[in-house]
Amino acid sequence: MKKIEHIGIAVKDLDASNNLYTKLMGSGPYKEEEVASEFVKTSFFRAGPNKIELLQATDERSAIHGFVEKNGEGIHHIAFAVDDIVAETKRLVGEGFKALLDKPKKGADNKLVMFFHPKTTGGVLIELCQDIKV
Amino acid sequence: MKKIEHIGIAVKDLDASNNLYTKLMGSGPYKEEEVASEFVKTSFFRAGPNKIELLQATDERSAIHGFVEKNGEGIHHIAFAVDDIVAETKRLVGEGFKALLDKPKKGADNKLVMFFHPKTTGGVLIELCQDIKV
Repeated sequence: MKKIEHIGIAVKDLDASNNLYTKLMGSGPYKEEEVASEFVKTSFFRAGPNKIELLQATDERSAIHGFVEKNGEGIHHIAFAVDDIVAETKRLVGEGFKALLDKPKKGADNKLVMFFHPKTTGGVLIELCQDIKV
Repeated sequence: MKKIEHIGIAVKDLDASNNLYTKLMGSGPYKEEEVASEFVKTSFFRAGPNKIELLQATDERSAIHGFVEKNGEGIHHIAFAVDDIVAETKRLVGEGFKALLDKPKKGADNKLVMFFHPKTTGGVLIELCQDIKV
C-alpha cells in the first residue's frame, strides 16, 4: 500500500457536512463530484498527501443510504493507493480477503477502485484505488 | 492538518489482528507499544507517509473495550498530524468542536494528542497529534 489515499465518511447532508469539515480541516472542499452509478454525491478535502471524501446518498439504492440508516454518520471506508490494482487485488484474494467486485471499476476522482468485504478485514471496508492514466 | 497521521482501528485480539493486517498491508507491524494510562496495547503498520494503529483493550476501563462491546471491531478514530497542537486545539474549540481533554497529553508513538467528541464532528472521533521533540 503506497499511502492512505482517502478516508470515506458517510454523511446525511453534503452541504451541512461541507460546512462542518471546512471548519475542521481549516479550508473548504477542492472538488465536488456526483457518481451516478453509485447513487452518491461526494466532496473532497485535502490533508497534505491524503484526502477526506464525504459521501451523501442520492437514492435509497446507495450503499451510503443503508450505512447511514444503520450506523448514522461516520467513517465508511479506508482507501489505499496502489500502483497495480489488478495485481494487488489478486494478492489480497489469495490471502483470503473477499473482493466485492468481479474486477476494478471506475469510481470518483478518476480512479479505478476495488472493495473488500469488512467481514474478511476485521470490520473495516477496505478500498484500493489506482489513478486512471489519461 | 498536515496529513492523516494514522487511522486507529479497535480490535479484540492484537495478535490475531496483527496476522490479518500483515496480510492486508503486505508487511508486518514495525512497532508494538502498550499505553498503560489508556489501558491499551497497540501495533503500528506503515502505509507510505501514513500509519494504521491497531488497539486492543487491556482492561475494561479502556475506551476501546467499550467501543468493541458496542460496535464490534472497526475504525475507531482518525488522527491528523499538526505542527502546533495547542494552537490547533484552540482554533477547533473556537469553531465549536468539543475537546475531550483539558490539554494535550502524551499518547502512543511519542506524540502529544488531543481528541474531539464525535457528537461535534459528524460522528467521527478526531485526534490531533504532534511529535514530541526529543
